[in-house]
Amino acid sequence: MSFITNEFAPLGSVKIRDGFWSRYQDIAKEKIIPYQWRVLNDQVPDTEPSHAIANFRIAAGLEKGDFHGYVFQDSDVAKWLEAVAYRLTIAPDAALEQTADGVIDLIGQAQEEDGYLDTYFQITAPDKKFTNLLDCHELYCAGHMTEAAVAYYEATGKDKLLSIMRRFVDLIDEKIGPEEGKLHGYPGHPELELALCRLYRATGEKRYLNLAKYMVDARGTEPHFFDWELEKREHRGFWGGGRVDRVDKKYNQSHKPIREQTEAVGHSVRAGYLYTGVADLAAETGDEGLARAARNLWDNVVNRQMYVTGGVGSQVWGEAFTFDYHLPNDSAYNETCAAISMVFFAKRMLRMDPDSRYSDVMERLLYNGTISGMALDGQHFFYTNPLAVWERATKNAGVVGHIQSKRPGWFGCACCPPNLARMITSLGSYVYSASADTVYAHLYVGSEAVLDVGGRQVTLSQTGNYPWDGHIAFTLSAGAYGLALRIPGWARTFSVRVNGAEVCPSVTKGYAVLRRTWRDGDTVELDLPMPVEFVEANPLLRADDGRVALMRGPVVYCLESADNGDCLDALSVCDPGDYAAETDSTLFPGMTAIVGPAVRQKPWTADALYRRYEGADAEKVTIRAIPYAFWDNREDTREMIVWVRKA
Amino acid sequence: MSFITNEFAPLGSVKIRDGFWSRYQDIAKEKIIPYQWRVLNDQVPDTEPSHAIANFRIAAGLEKGDFHGYVFQDSDVAKWLEAVAYRLTIAPDAALEQTADGVIDLIGQAQEEDGYLDTYFQITAPDKKFTNLLDCHELYCAGHMTEAAVAYYEATGKDKLLSIMRRFVDLIDEKIGPEEGKLHGYPGHPELELALCRLYRATGEKRYLNLAKYMVDARGTEPHFFDWELEKREHRGFWGGGRVDRVDKKYNQSHKPIREQTEAVGHSVRAGYLYTGVADLAAETGDEGLARAARNLWDNVVNRQMYVTGGVGSQVWGEAFTFDYHLPNDSAYNETCAAISMVFFAKRMLRMDPDSRYSDVMERLLYNGTISGMALDGQHFFYTNPLAVWERATKNAGVVGHIQSKRPGWFGCACCPPNLARMITSLGSYVYSASADTVYAHLYVGSEAVLDVGGRQVTLSQTGNYPWDGHIAFTLSAGAYGLALRIPGWARTFSVRVNGAEVCPSVTKGYAVLRRTWRDGDTVELDLPMPVEFVEANPLLRADDGRVALMRGPVVYCLESADNGDCLDALSVCDPGDYAAETDSTLFPGMTAIVGPAVRQKPWTADALYRRYEGADAEKVTIRAIPYAFWDNREDTREMIVWVRKA
Repeated sequence: MSFITNEFAPLGSVKIRDGFWSRYQDIAKEKIIPYQWRVLNDQVPDTEPSHAIANFRIAAGLEKGDFHGYVFQDSDVAKWLEAVAYRLTIAPDAALEQTADGVIDLIGQAQEEDGYLDTYFQITAPDKKFTNLLDCHELYCAGHMTEAAVAYYEATGKDKLLSIMRRFVDLIDEKIGPEEGKLHGYPGHPELELALCRLYRATGEKRYLNLAKYMVDARGTEPHFFDWELEKREHRGFWGGGRVDRVDKKYNQSHKPIREQTEAVGHSVRAGYLYTGVADLAAETGDEGLARAARNLWDNVVNRQMYVTGGVGSQVWGEAFTFDYHLPNDSAYNETCAAISMVFFAKRMLRMDPDSRYSDVMERLLYNGTISGMALDGQHFFYTNPLAVWERATKNAGVVGHIQSKRPGWFGCACCPPNLARMITSLGSYVYSASADTVYAHLYVGSEAVLDVGGRQVTLSQTGNYPWDGHIAFTLSAGAYGLALRIPGWARTFSVRVNGAEVCPSVTKGYAVLRRTWRDGDTVELDLPMPVEFVEANPLLRADDGRVALMRGPVVYCLESADNGDCLDALSVCDPGDYAAETDSTLFPGMTAIVGPAVRQKPWTADALYRRYEGADAEKVTIRAIPYAFWDNREDTREMIVWVRKA
Repeated sequence: MSFITNEFAPLGSVKIRDGFWSRYQDIAKEKIIPYQWRVLNDQVPDTEPSHAIANFRIAAGLEKGDFHGYVFQDSDVAKWLEAVAYRLTIAPDAALEQTADGVIDLIGQAQEEDGYLDTYFQITAPDKKFTNLLDCHELYCAGHMTEAAVAYYEATGKDKLLSIMRRFVDLIDEKIGPEEGKLHGYPGHPELELALCRLYRATGEKRYLNLAKYMVDARGTEPHFFDWELEKREHRGFWGGGRVDRVDKKYNQSHKPIREQTEAVGHSVRAGYLYTGVADLAAETGDEGLARAARNLWDNVVNRQMYVTGGVGSQVWGEAFTFDYHLPNDSAYNETCAAISMVFFAKRMLRMDPDSRYSDVMERLLYNGTISGMALDGQHFFYTNPLAVWERATKNAGVVGHIQSKRPGWFGCACCPPNLARMITSLGSYVYSASADTVYAHLYVGSEAVLDVGGRQVTLSQTGNYPWDGHIAFTLSAGAYGLALRIPGWARTFSVRVNGAEVCPSVTKGYAVLRRTWRDGDTVELDLPMPVEFVEANPLLRADDGRVALMRGPVVYCLESADNGDCLDALSVCDPGDYAAETDSTLFPGMTAIVGPAVRQKPWTADALYRRYEGADAEKVTIRAIPYAFWDNREDTREMIVWVRKA
């Protein structure tokens, strides 16, 4: 028995033709993937060498040398291959496919007789395999490569990498499990769990699901595996330094069994991948305990620990969640990868329960806190995504020393750029899902789709100018099925027309459902008015008290010093009705800016810090807000804020 | 030629009888000094042993053992002795004096033949003396012990410690200086400079002044002494770890010659002591370049880098200044010692220029950012003094992990408690100064004073209920002299009566000067109305934009959760006229609380973080503010804020 009520249309069946996302997919195709390939091969001058391909060549015995890079360097190759798989699905490219095949051949050569595959251990410590699941990312790398294998198989039909990874996973299955003599362990950095679920779905092999379930359920139980492992290692840490006294179990979410966890803690990417795997398992196995854990953790993240951009992870220490309502804007960590992991989590929740509580968050993430990680040139990336930046502070004050005010180029720990690449290239697989009788439109992305609805083929064409405009049009193929349109939480009202005639569909769990026997070429138009809105935060979210965020449709806006001068906190806004949307294609084709009046505290003539307050001393000014995701695409990045004071 | 225009009345000539400060002096007498004595002798159970007296006994050959404690552990004994000296001046105590004499005997026994005195080097590394002025606090400890020696000599007339320290200073003078063969060095932690100026004033020996001047002027010149020293040490650091590549010169203010410094940088206590020494030297030598440097640095600190409480040092990293207008409230470091060092600096500036720009800041520091470091029980102390505290964040978020929401007991690095003790016990020496013909009343502290005004004795009695009440009365002795009364910057108006009749004195540099031939028993009454005021910050101070601080007289107020519930940032205040002062002696005799209306955002019923803003959803509440210095004297310390949102 499973909890799956609807299934997402696979990537190959949804062709994106969208003013917004096609451009991002072009960037992935033309910039990120080719650039990363050169990075992986150490062909980019003035950049820290990746050595990732070289590591595989050394492990394969094709060249001599040492391992270089992070212990999880292999995963960079995996994420590249995964993105390539999606990109080949979107648009075939024989040369690229040949390159990928070559990499897969190399991976095969690097794999050991027994299936083992992890170049770090193969090159530097062959006798230490499976002795430090806590720190060494062996299972994490296996997870990413397994995702790549499934994606490449689905994209090309070629099963070489799939076979390679099945052999490695079989080896892991031999080493880890509840049986005596096996390690009662699980990954220090979750990822393999969700990958095993994907592998199960691709192959139908139940044992992959069982292994994932073992790892998820063993996590955090006593006797604690990581304690046992640490003792076994005589308290030696991997990261150098002296004796490690204890394991920070909250950091990797092994502080208690997952079924007892109700609060998101620790490293936010680890959390996001783990929760995604938990939701996957709940869906596939119909395990109510796991489903409840997934719902509890979702609710905690979304209702207590998520920035308005969708970002998660409030602090640099441990790149981690802190606690409920602690969401400081300027020191926020908000790793790009963590936001992406929440997109994965949302998709898994939607498979069990097509409720806009999940898809609204997915949309929030997609248009804001994920793509903010990449410059519009596709060549500069943020690891952190704060909601307030004062450049001078980032350079002179430790409290925000982890924040950058300009996206750097490709960086040493290159997890985020390829993660963005795989999210962007696979976006088509997030747009629609179908139950036995209903198509769910989760995202408003221009596209041509062919869907399987209860065994019947349905074609669906979607057009619009989202997220800048709320008019979306669908053309449907014939058949008796429901079309469920997400009515976003940000929309005050909506209207729907079928073949030009207004209808009043009922809304269930945030979806307006049109159920009828369609004829070929029937049209459905959805209108979502997009006035400029002020959003306020729960008063318990202290950092935002007395402030509002400007939104329009799903897009969160920000103020930059490039448009509004210095000292953005001296500004306050009055009424959302004063603001106008203005198309401005300078940064991005069709982009909508928000323009309107604000009040600015007048500068002081005295060189002083404090004075008696004798009433507001302010002047009227005009401010201009741009989408948060597009900040730092101009030279001046002295300041940026999302939350503006409300006069 | 000197720049000294007026001289502070020495401690022995001003007896404090004050509702506010006498209580603090009692705490110093009854709690801090006896408690610290037990700490120094390792007699306090459950407290990290100080070992400071033991270190001297070991150095003196009276017992065997290792050195324990910080490299600057000797300075704890010095600060204790200095506080004891002041305390004996306030109120003789034969037993305490005998104890102190015993300690001084011990120090004498510990001193080496050539005058050397620093138990860390004597015990652990006798061959390393004067090889690491950067890190090892040798000259810093010498400075504190010299201050103690001068204070003890002035208090008791006994010159034993003075002789001891003159011998050590003479040795330092032999080792350090511009001559070939000497070290061209200066203290990594300034303090000796100001101590040498005190020693010069106490002894009239010009060479102490010259040595101080050498150290101040050599600082930051090229070739850089700390670079030379580091190379000489083969780049070994003192604090363990590997090779030290470079010296952080900004940290210790040696990044450029002092005459070129216009911005306060680095470790704030180092800065405060250095600037104090610079002002001392400028005053004593009439060196305009040094005076200008002191003024520039004063202006930068006060006009750009000082919290409204007087606190300085915006960050935990390096316990340091950051940069202009960067004054975050919740992560502020504001070390108690740094605030105290600014009191020292202010006094030195006043000697050159009796301008209320200096004394107003001194007052701000005394009533707010210094004494906030101590609980009203005299037994718990803050090292850091933030202006906003959210207890849960201090315990769960690294960004404010250095902040404590409850004052701990005496701590290992015990610099702040004895520093408070010496400031509080010596307060009498900050109240009055006199020029050839004028008495300056810098502080309004109930007291009986005997002053030397141009060689003539003047007695002055001051009574009042400051800082809770603005009525201050003086009774004067006969003579022709001016009485200059500070008109605080916080006062909107003032009135003065002489023998009951209102007069209209002119105000020069913030002082209302009454100049006449007084008769014995003449009375002067000063009235400073004390309404509740809102204070606003320069808009460039981003952290406080849209907020006000509540003040009454010199006292900065705060809101605590104990009075106002949780989530203090959900509150906003409207008009200062709505607020009333209310006497409440629960925490402190005669304390004035501020009570009045505010608006509180209503709690949400939905478990959500964000919603569309549809207008303010708030309720009227009554808030109660207490003096900032008195926060955390009750059990509930969940939250505290100084800057409240202005509706």
